[in-house]
Amino acid sequence: MNTPTTPAPALGHDEIALALHRRYRGKIESVAKCPITSRSDLAVWYTPGVAAPARAIHADPALAYDLTAKGNTIAIVTDGSRVLGLGNVGPLAALPVMEGKAVLFKHFGGVDAVPICLDTQDTREIIAIVRAIAPSFGGINLEDIAPPRCFRVLDALRSTLDIPVWHDDQQGTAAVVLAALLNALEVVGKRLDDIRIALVGIGAANMAVYRLLRSQGVHPRAFVACDSRDTLHAGRSDIEARRDDLVEKWSVCVETNPERIRGGVAAALRDADVCIAFSTPGPSVVPSEAVRTMRKDSIVFACANPVPEIWPSDALAASARIVATGRSDFPNQVNNASIFPGLFRGVLDARATRITDGMARAAAHALARHAKDAGLTDQTILPPIDDTIAAAKVAAAVGCAAESEGLARTAVDHDAALQGALRKIQDARRADSAVAAIEADATCSRDATDTSISSVSGRLVGG
Amino acid sequence: MNTPTTPAPALGHDEIALALHRRYRGKIESVAKCPITSRSDLAVWYTPGVAAPARAIHADPALAYDLTAKGNTIAIVTDGSRVLGLGNVGPLAALPVMEGKAVLFKHFGGVDAVPICLDTQDTREIIAIVRAIAPSFGGINLEDIAPPRCFRVLDALRSTLDIPVWHDDQQGTAAVVLAALLNALEVVGKRLDDIRIALVGIGAANMAVYRLLRSQGVHPRAFVACDSRDTLHAGRSDIEARRDDLVEKWSVCVETNPERIRGGVAAALRDADVCIAFSTPGPSVVPSEAVRTMRKDSIVFACANPVPEIWPSDALAASARIVATGRSDFPNQVNNASIFPGLFRGVLDARATRITDGMARAAAHALARHAKDAGLTDQTILPPIDDTIAAAKVAAAVGCAAESEGLARTAVDHDAALQGALRKIQDARRADSAVAAIEADATCSRDATDTSISSVSGRLVGG
Repeated sequence: MNTPTTPAPALGHDEIALALHRRYRGKIESVAKCPITSRSDLAVWYTPGVAAPARAIHADPALAYDLTAKGNTIAIVTDGSRVLGLGNVGPLAALPVMEGKAVLFKHFGGVDAVPICLDTQDTREIIAIVRAIAPSFGGINLEDIAPPRCFRVLDALRSTLDIPVWHDDQQGTAAVVLAALLNALEVVGKRLDDIRIALVGIGAANMAVYRLLRSQGVHPRAFVACDSRDTLHAGRSDIEARRDDLVEKWSVCVETNPERIRGGVAAALRDADVCIAFSTPGPSVVPSEAVRTMRKDSIVFACANPVPEIWPSDALAASARIVATGRSDFPNQVNNASIFPGLFRGVLDARATRITDGMARAAAHALARHAKDAGLTDQTILPPIDDTIAAAKVAAAVGCAAESEGLARTAVDHDAALQGALRKIQDARRADSAVAAIEADATCSRDATDTSISSVSGRLVGG
Repeated sequence: MNTPTTPAPALGHDEIALALHRRYRGKIESVAKCPITSRSDLAVWYTPGVAAPARAIHADPALAYDLTAKGNTIAIVTDGSRVLGLGNVGPLAALPVMEGKAVLFKHFGGVDAVPICLDTQDTREIIAIVRAIAPSFGGINLEDIAPPRCFRVLDALRSTLDIPVWHDDQQGTAAVVLAALLNALEVVGKRLDDIRIALVGIGAANMAVYRLLRSQGVHPRAFVACDSRDTLHAGRSDIEARRDDLVEKWSVCVETNPERIRGGVAAALRDADVCIAFSTPGPSVVPSEAVRTMRKDSIVFACANPVPEIWPSDALAASARIVATGRSDFPNQVNNASIFPGLFRGVLDARATRITDGMARAAAHALARHAKDAGLTDQTILPPIDDTIAAAKVAAAVGCAAESEGLARTAVDHDAALQGALRKIQDARRADSAVAAIEADATCSRDATDTSISSVSGRLVGG
């Protein structure tokens, strides 16, 4: 394998991450956003003053959105059963990941997020717990829950809670893939209704990609999916035998690949225009030889973390035209972080009761359009994930979609929603910076002989 | 009734509280405490960098205290069944109260607190949910849960979780009452082992007061308790009939008041040295006439919120020597906020596995001693609740108690704990101020023609 331009993982990366996590003791904190200038202020924020908002909400529950932080606060809920590329590491090991996610929610969306790592992997218990904690939150982001449990949990919660529930590994992934695909097709001059798509891996992510592309109008015959065993087709008796458990997967068997093409990844990619891989960390899960058998101007999304199913340089060498990964250190990062902060900003500002496929598609189209307006190339099919304006546009588009579907509890004006979202994200970044400066100061003074915060940060930024 | 010096509730107090809650949309937010100066920092705080701390915690769960915010973060859990003086208003109406509590935790203790308002009032469900969410948290503060459920929930969680669980309405109240009582007795020159104590109301608060004073060595015969019906004694067949449910209350019937004194509040107060009332909002729950029948230099704690069982001026006119209430606008505020922030600061810094009666007593004695060092008077038996040094002393005392009971997971040095607690509280206040300034700025610019933030705040501080 010839990988001359592929950067090797930086030496000491793990050590830097550990040192910085240890230094800051995690990544988020709860801070008062109301002024407390004297003891008498507490008579307003706590007893006896707080009785007035409590009584008002008791009389009219909708006032919780006006008088508490509910309307800007979500829970990030995981059972730790499918964490990053690490697998079933449990709730405690999932906590640093959920804190990182909370940082992204705030920094990119102005959304307050609270990690809730559950010490249970029982489907019914998870559903009951999330229902029970819902009053404190304006939305629920499910995260890193293994399939098929994640499907059951999402479906049960969406249908019973009156706040938006989102499983980012499903819907967030599907939305950003749709956005990336729309623009990649634009670059190569192909149309969504006239392509063949290979899905490598058919877990939560690609199952959601399949569903969202279907809801966007792609015909099921356009897909050939494969799992670790083979391609999916109606003859897969191993899946059929577990069809009660694997409802979604079996439906893919039945709906797609009517020719019953067999032969795993190699067969799925042959003559495909697009390869969307969300399987296991590579770099040899998608072989170069298979990419070579794809049609001209092929598009390869190799999204496993931390190592993509094929290194971008290998895919390009195998004549792929556009390559995307989940990583920030390659061009074309296909990352949920381009969607979920703006999407939640939008549903919270609209006080939406749920998130539909239509709202997810609206988010994807807004993101794609923003990148297109800036100019597309083979290496820039999406905006960078820290593009504030992109997030605000996603928020406004989602809010408008919620309203037009009758799911918004407030009126939504596109331009006002855009400006409001921008301002909230900017305020959030100012708050993050202010608090981080205080923490850094405190950490330095605690450890006066060690000035390595800046030195480590320097290596971080530079490396 | 002659109440010339009693301030009437300020006019428009409710309106100010509602306006300010609406203005800030609640009181707390999640903020990043780690620096995010560029997109590349996210490769450390999120993927791929975050895999290193996740793996490290998976290998050694204790590292969660070093690598995440768990060790400084607690959940404030309520079912909304007994909120302030408002009663069973449910989880949503409880949310502003829990947010206020979170503000106090941060501002007075440097503790990050997350409101979790539960949409269930089933004892077993509450226990199961708190157990399940525990991985994210370094401690659990139960709040505003009605008795007897609160006893069952506390006992079940304390005995199974490896993080501290505290029911502030029980233990926090008991600890601050113990501190206040120690100093009030010091002022009047009486001894804890030679007094008679009337307990007016025998809900969660006074039950815990009774238990903690017993653990401090007060003989059960020193107490006469009463509920809304009569005094408690072994002849209360109404309580005996429900003794399975009312275990704690029945034990008070059996242990105290051997003479079976009857006659409600009036009988309980006759010849008592101390009246501790945690019953229903007054002002006529404890009548002046009853206070007049107490012994010389009597001590009256009238702690119902928002209106004490007797106005302080009435109690003093009825010859009470020392009067305390739960309110900030009278002298001698007996408020859990003098205990819980420092106590949690202490258990978190010691990484204690639980909170014992001994640790609660250590907190009370540290608080009392701090006030005594500053000089006691009839009107100053406790430090003000915003006394940072008092909170730090409570933290250090609790940490040392945890260590000496073998319940600390780190070594505790008293002076280092004191300095560490002080620094964390000061840093928290700086973070609060920085973020509140950004919020106020944003609110002003959002509403440019309205400068009433300062005007309302001015009324607030001045009023």
